[in-house]
Amino acid sequence: MEVVSRTRSFGGEQLVCRHASEATGTAMRFAVFVPPAASRGPVPVLWFLAGLTCTEANFTEKAGAQRVAAELGLMLVAPDTSPRGEGVADDPAYDLGQGAGFYLDATEAPWAPHFRMEQWITGELPGVVAANLPADMARQGITGHSMGGHGALTLALRHPGRYRSVSAFAPISSPTRCPWGEKALAAYLGADRAAWRAHDAATLIADGARVAEILVDQGTADQFLDGQLKPQLLREACEAAGIPLQLRMQDAYDHSYFFVASFVADHLRWHAERLAR
Amino acid sequence: MEVVSRTRSFGGEQLVCRHASEATGTAMRFAVFVPPAASRGPVPVLWFLAGLTCTEANFTEKAGAQRVAAELGLMLVAPDTSPRGEGVADDPAYDLGQGAGFYLDATEAPWAPHFRMEQWITGELPGVVAANLPADMARQGITGHSMGGHGALTLALRHPGRYRSVSAFAPISSPTRCPWGEKALAAYLGADRAAWRAHDAATLIADGARVAEILVDQGTADQFLDGQLKPQLLREACEAAGIPLQLRMQDAYDHSYFFVASFVADHLRWHAERLAR
Repeated sequence: MEVVSRTRSFGGEQLVCRHASEATGTAMRFAVFVPPAASRGPVPVLWFLAGLTCTEANFTEKAGAQRVAAELGLMLVAPDTSPRGEGVADDPAYDLGQGAGFYLDATEAPWAPHFRMEQWITGELPGVVAANLPADMARQGITGHSMGGHGALTLALRHPGRYRSVSAFAPISSPTRCPWGEKALAAYLGADRAAWRAHDAATLIADGARVAEILVDQGTADQFLDGQLKPQLLREACEAAGIPLQLRMQDAYDHSYFFVASFVADHLRWHAERLAR
Repeated sequence: MEVVSRTRSFGGEQLVCRHASEATGTAMRFAVFVPPAASRGPVPVLWFLAGLTCTEANFTEKAGAQRVAAELGLMLVAPDTSPRGEGVADDPAYDLGQGAGFYLDATEAPWAPHFRMEQWITGELPGVVAANLPADMARQGITGHSMGGHGALTLALRHPGRYRSVSAFAPISSPTRCPWGEKALAAYLGADRAAWRAHDAATLIADGARVAEILVDQGTADQFLDGQLKPQLLREACEAAGIPLQLRMQDAYDHSYFFVASFVADHLRWHAERLAR
């Protein structure tokens, strides 16, 4: 692991890191906030997965999460959203290819060789973090925004016991039933919709996957609310399965990081409480 | 005044605005955070002036100031750092021309026609703000970062009584005595160094200008500390003039917005206290 930059922030350190990933076959970047408490021993880890077009930088520079992470003694890990670079497949649209990895392992050409985001984030990167940073990997939570909210929900559902807490900001609740998701799942996983259900929070729950509880914030003025995000599909799935879902509709908030910043402290406190148990 | 965008943030509204400026002869942009308290009546205004290469967006998106501004009932106004566009003079270097207005009115070609940042920020923009937003213009404070710290200090010193409070993050303390400043002042004001003294916080103070007190934060790991920022020159001038200066050297912080974000709450509270009197 190479530390690309190291910046003091709220008494802790904001790192940007890079490593040669076996999962993706590329150099992958991720940002890590190390809180001051880490100087006294390993601290719990909260993963933040970002949305379409983002890198490790958006959450790190725009959410203002370091303040509360420093106070709570939480490490924040924000991975890039896809493999990148020459030799990596891409698409001219913003919602497919580089910057749009959807947190799954692609099976289809031309994506399969490098687009292995699930393997990277759940299989490989935790080992890199554990080996190089003062992280208590027995206490991990996960959250994310938009495509990254989808990622947080599906990875928590697909890896039971891995994350003690899961929340999301304006997640794509059911990618099998929205244009962003249908396009990406068809490209990465192929035309057979049966394979898609295992990468959709709502259908995963319908098919029996479980987490203890979920916190979701969603702005009512979000331009993607009705067409893409559809939180009612997550609510219906949670209600049918008996999963406690706290879905907070936030009046007049949109899809931007101003929305994430406004509620990130609530999420960090929610995770910290559950990671302390 | 045209509202380019309007985004909910911490219960208030983050606006990006544009207006046709007579001072600069261009369309000028500025960002405004309107706190929730403004729905009950005019609120005090804190100006934030940004540094080299910045626009109205950097502070707005990266400093995380809205949270405390919402709590304190402060309006934040963050102007762009120069005129821009076709027909506006520029220089290929990052530290001159567009993005580098230095908060003064240029007298020299090719800058004089549009580079009138002092007239815009102190003469014209307050009228636009007062006419269009719930601002109490009798209660204004000013702060800024780097070149914008220079701007905050010099505008407060040059316009006595205008700003009730002034602070800065890593300001260029004495532009007549550092490479950034010497280059810009020579270009905008001409070769006669006598004219420069009126746009340098330290020499303004030496020449008799006064403010009630100053708060400055400065990172000790700032890469521009010794070569450009030179806070000791401000300290010497304040000591000689009897101006109370609280210069806080912040261990291991650099010049980035991670530094600004770490201490912006302190500055907002400091200004709010003085604007409440």
